[in-house]
Amino acid sequence: MANNLINLKKYLKDELPKINTSLETEIKSLPPFIYKVAKHVLNAGGKRLRPLLTILTARALGYNKKDIYPLASALEIFHSATLIHDDILDNAHLRRGKTASHLVFGIKESILAGDGLLALGNLIVARYNNPALTHTISEAILATAYGEIQEISLSGQNITETTYLEIIKGKTAFLIQAACECGAILSGRDKEFILAAKNYGLNIGIAFQLVDDALDYTQNASTLGKPNWGDLKEGKITLPLILYLKELPDLKKEETLQKILTNSLNIEEIEQIALTIQNNKIAIQVREKAKTFLSSAKQSLKVFPSSKETTLLFAILDYILEREK
Amino acid sequence: MANNLINLKKYLKDELPKINTSLETEIKSLPPFIYKVAKHVLNAGGKRLRPLLTILTARALGYNKKDIYPLASALEIFHSATLIHDDILDNAHLRRGKTASHLVFGIKESILAGDGLLALGNLIVARYNNPALTHTISEAILATAYGEIQEISLSGQNITETTYLEIIKGKTAFLIQAACECGAILSGRDKEFILAAKNYGLNIGIAFQLVDDALDYTQNASTLGKPNWGDLKEGKITLPLILYLKELPDLKKEETLQKILTNSLNIEEIEQIALTIQNNKIAIQVREKAKTFLSSAKQSLKVFPSSKETTLLFAILDYILEREK
Repeated sequence: MANNLINLKKYLKDELPKINTSLETEIKSLPPFIYKVAKHVLNAGGKRLRPLLTILTARALGYNKKDIYPLASALEIFHSATLIHDDILDNAHLRRGKTASHLVFGIKESILAGDGLLALGNLIVARYNNPALTHTISEAILATAYGEIQEISLSGQNITETTYLEIIKGKTAFLIQAACECGAILSGRDKEFILAAKNYGLNIGIAFQLVDDALDYTQNASTLGKPNWGDLKEGKITLPLILYLKELPDLKKEETLQKILTNSLNIEEIEQIALTIQNNKIAIQVREKAKTFLSSAKQSLKVFPSSKETTLLFAILDYILEREK
Repeated sequence: MANNLINLKKYLKDELPKINTSLETEIKSLPPFIYKVAKHVLNAGGKRLRPLLTILTARALGYNKKDIYPLASALEIFHSATLIHDDILDNAHLRRGKTASHLVFGIKESILAGDGLLALGNLIVARYNNPALTHTISEAILATAYGEIQEISLSGQNITETTYLEIIKGKTAFLIQAACECGAILSGRDKEFILAAKNYGLNIGIAFQLVDDALDYTQNASTLGKPNWGDLKEGKITLPLILYLKELPDLKKEETLQKILTNSLNIEEIEQIALTIQNNKIAIQVREKAKTFLSSAKQSLKVFPSSKETTLLFAILDYILEREK
């Protein structure tokens, strides 16, 4: 493993207990039932990528106060709230290797717990007396909801690569963008740096989801903490499948697409498509695509002052590309 | 009709177009799909009680700027978001006389549209550069979600009057409290006035829901814009039913309660209970209870400076008690 990735792991190892302690402190103020749901989702693990990004961005821009942790936690809380609502929408069974909340606590209860967590996140952010933070977060939540709606409204339809990229911006990238932007806003630095952080976040967010969608085809279920080939089984069109279909002769393409969209592939067909995506280097093509976004992210970081944290923000580019779960 | 109620109607008639114009301006910035859902809920009518309370409270405390309208609209937007999620939870068919959103646009889409509207409300509030506003709103949204969860978790169980009051605080009163508190915060007046506005809001909110629950038994469906006796039919225990059950001999009480909680009353039994609640003056007892909260609200208003708007805040006490839908 490259040296900078080792340093990133070490940094995360130091920060993780502080992030988790802050998370625990914040969710403790929740009414008992919402606390249970929050605890279930947060204890299931998760990479804490968003809090880490908030911390790294703020520190890279010279912000050294300890009050960064609640803000960083708020980003994980928003993320958890969207996961809870997502899993209801997708009728998912597993999340982070544990039973999805709505199956443990009920759908109605989980809708409301999600609402409660969104409100808790806003409460934490409001404590910073900096409305730009609330503005950034609210725009991201709105864009995330819209991304999900787009995805749902297009389910059962073939989508282009352009539409696919729009959807993944909405469902993943905007909240990661907000995590970086919030760190930059808190640092109190000029607009130039805030824009750079925002652009970095948007691009790594897109790359993150691209890699996620590739992993769904290439990684095994126990590493993912959820069933693999899930997108294909659900008839969800992501980039690996778009590229796979592109290679098929017209007639076969139409036939396969119809089967995918109507969830009528049998298990052999699913396996055959998934293995072709792995073997024909389509997964590698997806990672190549991710690289173009990571390279834009890298470009944005150039205005950042040199520091340990800036080096780690560069390291995250490698982490995103090379991660296996 | 008393003079002050006529003045209140006149005031609302003048303000309503301004509130609605502001609402339309704000929701126009929504992504197209969420806009459609918002439009559906907001166009179905609604009393605009929360925006009116924000406007009246701010003005009563001397705030005369026109920028009150977006804040007032935000309160209606939060209210609409909670209604959309509520109707999914209750599997309601009608809202404000129109088909409930989730039946028009789909459950998943409505969950996300609700999330989007909550985010839009936060965006609007963030524009005021006053984190106390975001704080107040987020606390109210969290408390509302918790009130709903309590209601759900206790469904199918008998509840006491105390628990009932806790639930209605959560599901209704805290957002009305926030509407008043936000107006007071915006006015920039001392804590004394903010607390008075908050207390006024909480108490009229409780009274409002008490009257609502009485109306469910005494008013006809076409006036309500939804089926009447809905609470009884759904096995929802509200104060009228608590008082009705109290009057029954023990054995009959237990038998009736079980039928209510298991939704096994037949239509004749429903009618008989509803008519007893109307005729035995139980509905009047509920309004008497509402009066005690209205009287606390009245007390809070005493520190307010005399003004046209303060007079109208007093008039709202009568409106709440006397309203028929």
